[in-house]
Amino acid sequence: MKVVTFGEIMLRLSTPDHKRIFQADSFDVTYGGAEANVAAFLAQMGLDSYFVTKLPNNPLGDAAAGHLRRFGVKTDYVARDGNRIGIYFLEIGASQRPSKVVYDRAHSAFSEAKREDFDWDKILDGAKWFHFSGITPPLGKELPFILEDALKVAKEKGVTVSCDLNYRARLWTKEEAQKVMIPFMEYVDVLIANEEDIEKVLGISIEGLDLKTGKLNRESYAKIAEEVTKKYNFKTVGITLRESVSATVNYWSVMVFENGEPHFSNRYEIHIVDRVGAGDSFAGALIYGSLMGFDPQKKAEFAAAASCLKHTIPGDFAVLSVEEIEKLASGATSGRVER
Amino acid sequence: MKVVTFGEIMLRLSTPDHKRIFQADSFDVTYGGAEANVAAFLAQMGLDSYFVTKLPNNPLGDAAAGHLRRFGVKTDYVARDGNRIGIYFLEIGASQRPSKVVYDRAHSAFSEAKREDFDWDKILDGAKWFHFSGITPPLGKELPFILEDALKVAKEKGVTVSCDLNYRARLWTKEEAQKVMIPFMEYVDVLIANEEDIEKVLGISIEGLDLKTGKLNRESYAKIAEEVTKKYNFKTVGITLRESVSATVNYWSVMVFENGEPHFSNRYEIHIVDRVGAGDSFAGALIYGSLMGFDPQKKAEFAAAASCLKHTIPGDFAVLSVEEIEKLASGATSGRVER
Amino acid sequence: MKVVTFGEIMLRLSTPDHKRIFQADSFDVTYGGAEANVAAFLAQMGLDSYFVTKLPNNPLGDAAAGHLRRFGVKTDYVARDGNRIGIYFLEIGASQRPSKVVYDRAHSAFSEAKREDFDWDKILDGAKWFHFSGITPPLGKELPFILEDALKVAKEKGVTVSCDLNYRARLWTKEEAQKVMIPFMEYVDVLIANEEDIEKVLGISIEGLDLKTGKLNRESYAKIAEEVTKKYNFKTVGITLRESVSATVNYWSVMVFENGEPHFSNRYEIHIVDRVGAGDSFAGALIYGSLMGFDPQKKAEFAAAASCLKHTIPGDFAVLSVEEIEKLASGATSGRVER
Amino acid sequence: MKVVTFGEIMLRLSTPDHKRIFQADSFDVTYGGAEANVAAFLAQMGLDSYFVTKLPNNPLGDAAAGHLRRFGVKTDYVARDGNRIGIYFLEIGASQRPSKVVYDRAHSAFSEAKREDFDWDKILDGAKWFHFSGITPPLGKELPFILEDALKVAKEKGVTVSCDLNYRARLWTKEEAQKVMIPFMEYVDVLIANEEDIEKVLGISIEGLDLKTGKLNRESYAKIAEEVTKKYNFKTVGITLRESVSATVNYWSVMVFENGEPHFSNRYEIHIVDRVGAGDSFAGALIYGSLMGFDPQKKAEFAAAASCLKHTIPGDFAVLSVEEIEKLASGATSGRVER
Amino acid sequence: MKVVTFGEIMLRLSTPDHKRIFQADSFDVTYGGAEANVAAFLAQMGLDSYFVTKLPNNPLGDAAAGHLRRFGVKTDYVARDGNRIGIYFLEIGASQRPSKVVYDRAHSAFSEAKREDFDWDKILDGAKWFHFSGITPPLGKELPFILEDALKVAKEKGVTVSCDLNYRARLWTKEEAQKVMIPFMEYVDVLIANEEDIEKVLGISIEGLDLKTGKLNRESYAKIAEEVTKKYNFKTVGITLRESVSATVNYWSVMVFENGEPHFSNRYEIHIVDRVGAGDSFAGALIYGSLMGFDPQKKAEFAAAASCLKHTIPGDFAVLSVEEIEKLASGATSGRVER
Amino acid sequence: MKVVTFGEIMLRLSTPDHKRIFQADSFDVTYGGAEANVAAFLAQMGLDSYFVTKLPNNPLGDAAAGHLRRFGVKTDYVARDGNRIGIYFLEIGASQRPSKVVYDRAHSAFSEAKREDFDWDKILDGAKWFHFSGITPPLGKELPFILEDALKVAKEKGVTVSCDLNYRARLWTKEEAQKVMIPFMEYVDVLIANEEDIEKVLGISIEGLDLKTGKLNRESYAKIAEEVTKKYNFKTVGITLRESVSATVNYWSVMVFENGEPHFSNRYEIHIVDRVGAGDSFAGALIYGSLMGFDPQKKAEFAAAASCLKHTIPGDFAVLSVEEIEKLASGATSGRVER
Repeated sequence: MKVVTFGEIMLRLSTPDHKRIFQADSFDVTYGGAEANVAAFLAQMGLDSYFVTKLPNNPLGDAAAGHLRRFGVKTDYVARDGNRIGIYFLEIGASQRPSKVVYDRAHSAFSEAKREDFDWDKILDGAKWFHFSGITPPLGKELPFILEDALKVAKEKGVTVSCDLNYRARLWTKEEAQKVMIPFMEYVDVLIANEEDIEKVLGISIEGLDLKTGKLNRESYAKIAEEVTKKYNFKTVGITLRESVSATVNYWSVMVFENGEPHFSNRYEIHIVDRVGAGDSFAGALIYGSLMGFDPQKKAEFAAAASCLKHTIPGDFAVLSVEEIEKLASGATSGRVER
Repeated sequence: MKVVTFGEIMLRLSTPDHKRIFQADSFDVTYGGAEANVAAFLAQMGLDSYFVTKLPNNPLGDAAAGHLRRFGVKTDYVARDGNRIGIYFLEIGASQRPSKVVYDRAHSAFSEAKREDFDWDKILDGAKWFHFSGITPPLGKELPFILEDALKVAKEKGVTVSCDLNYRARLWTKEEAQKVMIPFMEYVDVLIANEEDIEKVLGISIEGLDLKTGKLNRESYAKIAEEVTKKYNFKTVGITLRESVSATVNYWSVMVFENGEPHFSNRYEIHIVDRVGAGDSFAGALIYGSLMGFDPQKKAEFAAAASCLKHTIPGDFAVLSVEEIEKLASGATSGRVER
Repeated sequence: MKVVTFGEIMLRLSTPDHKRIFQADSFDVTYGGAEANVAAFLAQMGLDSYFVTKLPNNPLGDAAAGHLRRFGVKTDYVARDGNRIGIYFLEIGASQRPSKVVYDRAHSAFSEAKREDFDWDKILDGAKWFHFSGITPPLGKELPFILEDALKVAKEKGVTVSCDLNYRARLWTKEEAQKVMIPFMEYVDVLIANEEDIEKVLGISIEGLDLKTGKLNRESYAKIAEEVTKKYNFKTVGITLRESVSATVNYWSVMVFENGEPHFSNRYEIHIVDRVGAGDSFAGALIYGSLMGFDPQKKAEFAAAASCLKHTIPGDFAVLSVEEIEKLASGATSGRVER
Repeated sequence: MKVVTFGEIMLRLSTPDHKRIFQADSFDVTYGGAEANVAAFLAQMGLDSYFVTKLPNNPLGDAAAGHLRRFGVKTDYVARDGNRIGIYFLEIGASQRPSKVVYDRAHSAFSEAKREDFDWDKILDGAKWFHFSGITPPLGKELPFILEDALKVAKEKGVTVSCDLNYRARLWTKEEAQKVMIPFMEYVDVLIANEEDIEKVLGISIEGLDLKTGKLNRESYAKIAEEVTKKYNFKTVGITLRESVSATVNYWSVMVFENGEPHFSNRYEIHIVDRVGAGDSFAGALIYGSLMGFDPQKKAEFAAAASCLKHTIPGDFAVLSVEEIEKLASGATSGRVER
Repeated sequence: MKVVTFGEIMLRLSTPDHKRIFQADSFDVTYGGAEANVAAFLAQMGLDSYFVTKLPNNPLGDAAAGHLRRFGVKTDYVARDGNRIGIYFLEIGASQRPSKVVYDRAHSAFSEAKREDFDWDKILDGAKWFHFSGITPPLGKELPFILEDALKVAKEKGVTVSCDLNYRARLWTKEEAQKVMIPFMEYVDVLIANEEDIEKVLGISIEGLDLKTGKLNRESYAKIAEEVTKKYNFKTVGITLRESVSATVNYWSVMVFENGEPHFSNRYEIHIVDRVGAGDSFAGALIYGSLMGFDPQKKAEFAAAASCLKHTIPGDFAVLSVEEIEKLASGATSGRVER
Repeated sequence: MKVVTFGEIMLRLSTPDHKRIFQADSFDVTYGGAEANVAAFLAQMGLDSYFVTKLPNNPLGDAAAGHLRRFGVKTDYVARDGNRIGIYFLEIGASQRPSKVVYDRAHSAFSEAKREDFDWDKILDGAKWFHFSGITPPLGKELPFILEDALKVAKEKGVTVSCDLNYRARLWTKEEAQKVMIPFMEYVDVLIANEEDIEKVLGISIEGLDLKTGKLNRESYAKIAEEVTKKYNFKTVGITLRESVSATVNYWSVMVFENGEPHFSNRYEIHIVDRVGAGDSFAGALIYGSLMGFDPQKKAEFAAAASCLKHTIPGDFAVLSVEEIEKLASGATSGRVER
């Protein structure tokens, strides 16, 4: 089952042992990015998962491609050219100290991608699913047009499309985001969002959410999902509900809105190892659940369990099997040693 | 004071920093195994602690022996021959992700041990205590017979015998376990068990225990200890009561049943560093408490504190002094810096 | 704005990954000490921060000086001579296992410092603040006299003086401490103390505090601050209120007593990475707040936030900006990723 | 261009920093094996490189497959089942201390492979080249038959076949080797051997070679290549000429015998980082040169340069580009920094 | 004694243990750049060494500044602004495999520096020496003008000026380099060059040098130094003579041309640990020798010894004392342990 | 076969990867000292090897004892008390940069040892050999007397005594050394020395040795051995002949003088990993060879091979088997991989 995601993969340089960047004498090296993380997740579920991007023709580009392949992702459609790979530096916080990301992604090969770098007819041939996120369009001048190309071909070919809104204030303003993203919504079947995205990208505000304290109001989420579904006719809306107690402890649950009904998952108290990419595991698991024909509640539980588990795995990419996710989704939360 | 334990010591290869095996670029190396862990605990208490096993004549066998000696364990009766050392791979889990053990212990030197490898008359000469666990007999064809040899000699010499039931479903079925282990019970003075063992190995079921949720019912434990004591005439029954909230947070307490009465220890909320070997530290501390003539409540508190502390120490072997354990057992739970 | 602190900086050798010293095959290397930590904190706040000490003329002395400079501390007045640098070994505990410090600081260059090593007229020229702690006088024979020299010059020059009582039972008895420290109190404008210090060093007992259980009584603290203020006419008294649940989880808040009133900060539940130096960050932040003219409540919140954050940073020295501290002080406790 | 290699890939556990196994507190983790190394080399040359093996269905099997993919090797025909992955432990020697390998590969999934695990018609469909080594047949009972199956299908399909004799005295005797390997020679087009192999596996002795001192006689090599070529009608014979001065310094050159003539490469003085897999890089480079239609001297220089460079790269797998190899082959031996 | 250098300092990310970038799971972190390396060298000689550059206002900029200070370099004149720090990735080669540098320095804060960022009147006030290299001008549009500003002020103030030609083909063509650099020569008192620079930057060709084989002809160097001295009236010309046997073994000597005479140093056979920055240590040592008034032969020996030793120290910055350098310069080449 | 050595074991803190102490962010931890190294060597040869020392009662003392036991050394006679363990910091040099040792051993538990700490009657009961070195007496006030006690008891009991002169200029002057050491010579059967020792400690000068260039003259060594043998009636004199080309490359051979004849070993060109303790391995191997009754030439070859191999092993303690040493001693110098 062929699935395709499109976006940027970056070199990720993180400090070990909760060190601050200022103190670091070494960086742990891995590679990641929103859509690449989804591709890696889907590859591990056993799907034929392709990640489409552009990487420079240097050892760092090679290493990023090798990293994708290691996790089972197919790199056949990766364009190779340009000057550099995007980088992000990561401090993993603890307790009251937030994790901190320093981006150094301007002028990357991907940001300078051209429409002719990607032959969507070929790329989406035989595909069942296409996924992208709201991080991608603001990264480069031609990227909104490349995405538009992809979405049109996807529609022609009957490929299901999912979009994770993923609003990043560093990359564009609300107004810019809305101008680009709202027209894309007509192509989108499955919408994925975390708590800030819907307000910023779709211009629909959520009441009952206080980002500062991390308190959530479940009903507000149901209402807003209903509203966006009405407006854009999504088949599914998936929303993650993160309650941040601290950088160490979070509560985590998800809502899948389908057929006019919200389906809330179990709520997990998580001691965090590495939360980067948890939202992408949610997206990946929701896609997987949709492709497998799970009912909405099972989708919610599966996607909540998958993304809960991602919090415990270092690196952007999850390393998980269907069995492991299903075991947690079925209620085995005790974390007892498996021998 | 000479004490003897018998079993397998394995090369332990664990991933650093909560990585999954799939991601590992290095493994942390240590050595451990149920009875070796008990021997190491007792050596640190200052006893004359001998571990009896069989190791291959190669650098890994040398290293395992060296590791034992480093922790004060005497290796005079270790047989050396055979093809390989048993190995176990360990991922230390976090939060909802369980720790995972991948065993690779088949065909080890120990599993191929022969009765003639061990001269129990010499080994148990002057010994006060002999300890083994239910992991040992299913590991190799001759091992039940070797154990029978040891137990008979122990009985003749008046050596006190303890057994940790330690049922492992990967190694044998309940039926196989019962067939071998139940006849051994007549030699056993002190029985140690965790929550699943009694049902599986002795065929006596515990009500009021839900392994999935990790909830425990103290009275059920008292009842079952009473029952097995009646049946097998044990002097002491020690049971660990683990309540698994997650792979990160557990509640931990123990019960020592003696003279017809259950003695429950303090209950600790533990943030886990490495829980492997905690049960073995409990066993070791219970043996130590018995040899020192502690009263049952003190045995319980000492053994609970020792095994609580083991959760905070990396590796299979505890590194603890009598003073450290007694300090916690006496109620100093605040974890304030000691300068 | 020139600030000066005086004390010992040691080589700190800590075990990685919660290992015990017995197990360690490597030590993480950093440098720290009470007053050096304060100097590093103040340098990061942007002040002209000088640390005064004596270091041996060897690569370890060079490295300690380099470490100070790396964090922005000026080393112009560091005397260089003597035989060795003081060392402390550190095990970072977890859960019920306390962190453990093994000192090896006797005979250090600093402990053998002479009065002629320090020209206080020059050192304090133009300075706004002088800080020292109760750890320094017992370290060497001439140190009480050197401190007395410094305090007299500070008074002449109108330099504000702060003192962190920092009682260490390994270094001297209560009686010895009181004999040296009480006469110094007349020079002190700002007194800093944790819960044991006031009783031991100033001989004034606090009721309502049970160190073993870590329970605190806020009113007792207010009373005692009032009492010492009356007695010694301090401008400000800062007290840290640590509630130790375990070596992993602590509650942390502070009180700033000024103008006859106690000002309590927010109370943080902290998951600890490295708590060494937290009290020094409190001292540094209180000094910074005083120099900036913060009102007492803001001083309390700022100093509580700064020292809360220190618990999450490896090493003795905090790595923090004014902005980061103010963000937490203003209530952003959720630890959400900053991108 | 599709190429296929068949053999075992093992978990490789090596000690860092020239430590002995006895001292190791961690092992560096990678994966390798003779034919896997060839596959990885060919993948990096840009060919469509498939490695055929059998791996257990556990995280270590997953990791081995992921490692192959990372280096660009296709794992489509890897059978998955069985109990364990083969392991080898490696100490990298220095100076007069030899590198030491401890094998622990018995009972591996590969050693228990069955004929029905591999559909050679499918595997070799469209392939240009098939490579195997003399390590494979003695590893398991059915392996000689599986290889025979593969060789027959290769012959039918006109696939070129190369064999690296790779005699390992631990695995079988000369007599056993000859019995199995000599009949395979009729299928072999390109023979690869190091200095001991021809005598042991083909029963043809080389004079003028003193393994103990590492001295070589070039003419003897030419003669023996001529002899085996006559006897078995090989198209090409490739021989590596290692002169071991010590575990740190080796001289390295190769001979390619083709069309009745020996072609000797440049002779390199190598300071060794990791020599494991150098012979496999030679094999891979000879295959690549053959597929590219290089003339015999160019084959020799290219294969010598590739295998020379492998000595400088940690791990079994080379990481090299065609350009890098050609640059050295063309005489750029000075090792000047490339910016 | 105040000395000033001006240029870019980059984040250096190098692979450990001779790994290739493709294989790296961690990078060693340090900071360096041609003129920063000279500044660090001079600081260690005990001079008042200032490095002038522009760094971004982020944790990586902070860390670079901290790194400079750690080595004793003053950062008072460092401008702070812009988007990113320049990065270079480094593989340290071995034997026939060259070290490889991948630059990612475009768009750095330094490359976007403006003339108004640097107040040369203040910066060079009281300075004895100003040093720059040929790497700096091509890095950014305004950099040639900034350098021109600096050189003019230096001339006015009577500051001695040294220039390391340091031609980098990736940054500009010979023609571009000559256009910018030749006019700067009138300000230069001390010229430093390695073997390629003079031809490329000054357009004067050296015969007798074969870069590919690394063979050198001493007379040619003397002639060329004479020629450039005549043409540009340099007080001193310093040339490093690297003979590259391989990436592991180099021969190293230097020539100092002064008063019409060449002065050749001892020639060292070096086993390389990290050769990056060796030329900068040569430059630094030549500057130090000039400031100290060494005679030309002593300058040559001191600078050769300093730069020889740099090859043995990891990182861009040397860590050396005057005593250590003089000891080697005086002939103590045996490397015997110093206790 | 019981052998006893007496001296100090220190905590050894070395920088990884040829870093300088100034740069170190971690230290590798091991333990060593001249006589401890000999004890570890002998334990590995299979002898009953006891090391006698005094260690503090803290985790570092425990760790040193554990380290000894790990390598098979018996610690039954180790006194425990005092304030600190001696420490030495080690930079492993390279090429022209010497390794550097910074001692921090004053005031150690061993240096404060008392005569009553050691019951030599018991310690030497049944012993065949007693070994000490010239490092021990100057370490503490009572140490010369303790040694005298030991030597007298050894003589009474007919224990063979060996002494490694091991002159250390940091510890005492030639005159002090001679005053203490010369009277001990009457007890010594086997004298071990490196090139400087005989002159400094016994006051007999060697001509033909230029320490600076590392050139050696074999005849001078024979003469001097003859001379000291005559004077002190030694049974055996063992001398190591180190020719230091650089910190990376040394030539190494040894001479054993016995029965009036010098016996020179093979001369090895060594690429050094860690040369600390090589002399101690020579001493250990000479003792082993004497106990085994090797003829003088075999002693020389065995001891040369053992100490040659030590140069390739990290840490003070050799990790070697009799077989490995004999293999090299018999001429297998090629360093080929052992599988």
